Amino acid sequence: MPKLLLLSRDADQYLQLIGAAQLPGLEFTTDSEESDIVLGEPKWIQGELPRLSALKWAQSIYAGVEPLVDQTQRRDYILTNARGVFGELMSEYVFGYLLFHEKKILERINAQRSIQWQRPESGVLRGKTLGLLGVGSIGAHLAGTAKHFGLTVRGYTRKSETSANVDEYYHGNDLLRFVEGLDYLVSVLPRTRDTNQIVDTELLNALPPQAVFINVGRGNAVDESALVTALNEGKLAAAVLDVFEKEPLPEGHPFWTTPNLYMTFHTSAISYPEDLTKLFIENYQHYLEGKPLKYVVDFERGY
Amino acid sequence: MPKLLLLSRDADQYLQLIGAAQLPGLEFTTDSEESDIVLGEPKWIQGELPRLSALKWAQSIYAGVEPLVDQTQRRDYILTNARGVFGELMSEYVFGYLLFHEKKILERINAQRSIQWQRPESGVLRGKTLGLLGVGSIGAHLAGTAKHFGLTVRGYTRKSETSANVDEYYHGNDLLRFVEGLDYLVSVLPRTRDTNQIVDTELLNALPPQAVFINVGRGNAVDESALVTALNEGKLAAAVLDVFEKEPLPEGHPFWTTPNLYMTFHTSAISYPEDLTKLFIENYQHYLEGKPLKYVVDFERGY
Repeated sequence: MPKLLLLSRDADQYLQLIGAAQLPGLEFTTDSEESDIVLGEPKWIQGELPRLSALKWAQSIYAGVEPLVDQTQRRDYILTNARGVFGELMSEYVFGYLLFHEKKILERINAQRSIQWQRPESGVLRGKTLGLLGVGSIGAHLAGTAKHFGLTVRGYTRKSETSANVDEYYHGNDLLRFVEGLDYLVSVLPRTRDTNQIVDTELLNALPPQAVFINVGRGNAVDESALVTALNEGKLAAAVLDVFEKEPLPEGHPFWTTPNLYMTFHTSAISYPEDLTKLFIENYQHYLEGKPLKYVVDFERGY
Repeated sequence: MPKLLLLSRDADQYLQLIGAAQLPGLEFTTDSEESDIVLGEPKWIQGELPRLSALKWAQSIYAGVEPLVDQTQRRDYILTNARGVFGELMSEYVFGYLLFHEKKILERINAQRSIQWQRPESGVLRGKTLGLLGVGSIGAHLAGTAKHFGLTVRGYTRKSETSANVDEYYHGNDLLRFVEGLDYLVSVLPRTRDTNQIVDTELLNALPPQAVFINVGRGNAVDESALVTALNEGKLAAAVLDVFEKEPLPEGHPFWTTPNLYMTFHTSAISYPEDLTKLFIENYQHYLEGKPLKYVVDFERGY
């Protein structure tokens, strides 16, 4: 009988939601040693790994699984991560900030505070060009929202070219050509060896001065001091960062006071148990039937 | 030969854009008395009406045509207004402010300013319910964007039920049932006798306390002092106003300092000559061929 261990602060909610689905054969357990299935946060799972002697499958409730793909950890089980569930939330976040910028919302709040009937012209999304660093399930969703708003979409990927909403794909050494003339650059890259500081001085200098950069992937993708310099020198119009090299961001970090830099402290997409339960139920059916699971993590690649 | 008079501050741009289209038979004129066609701002056209002795068709570059449907004005010509061109811009504006609210952008800016790693949970659009007061071409476009973001959409109209993206229509006396449980209420109503103060104390009290009200239609739809009271008493979470009973808003008006009230001073959608030229070209073909024009204004109804 499959035995599921829940390793999340939302364990009670998962118990209720998954329990209500009455999945065939599934039992819940709190005993790490007898559980063959684990659902939870990567860090919690990592802490429990030495005791998970029967582990066959771990379903992460996050997209990022850094603690589990670390070279020092065991890899003798199937790890699946959360994909296909954050696209909607990320779209709300990214387009919320792009529209906040274009509609000059902060400027208008300040005009109102100073009791001034001011009418600066809003910018528009329509007709602009968005570049996606990484086009997985989140990137593909962002591309769909971009199309709804009439944007042109470029995608920079390792090799995949699977999203119908991306107008043009770029790979490998084409990074600078990819960012040339972009209005918006959004990174959804996972933390891997290959994504370290991909957003560096050279890339930032290649962006047009009206560009907005948003990072909802991982903090390692950004050379943070290069970004501070670029914003101070007006090489780009604004940056919105949800993720950082070190979280929580240290008190003395220059990001806190860099002009045109907006921070949101790793809140752009939340793991809602309702979403994750759907994903788990689908994968559990595959597990029972011996079919390949969805969203299997490649330990070597790191995502 | 049709003779076109341009009555807009963007006349040069219209001359260039429409000229480039080389419309069959069309001549430009600066002589009001010989022009049978006028393209321009309603107020400018109104001022010129006494001299427009050959006028057959006036194309307004705005949606609102109040100066021309005023009872004291002549009505012996076909008046068409701008429709089908503001939907995209209005969608950017409305969803920009809804996301600004849900993503707690101002709260996060304040957290950053006080150097606090704070993580208040964002709200989501997905699953919420939007009510549209008026479902013309702008309302229909807003409904489409709402569907993209996974919202339920209600429409309150005189009688039309033509948008596929509206889940449920309401009419006449069903106004309070229409607003019951709404998360967002957006007015795109034109200024007519029937729309005066449709958003009054009773309607505002019927909104749930988490509701956001946005007015991108006309200021007459709102009982302004009722809205101030409702916001002060927390009957709704926020209001975003682009239009007002009197514009510019007088200096002493309570709106300037009402909590959770955001104002944008009639900038939500701009008439871009490129958009209006497309509309004019299409209508000119109809005019030449003697076919009914698009977006004819009913002088009696007022829009």
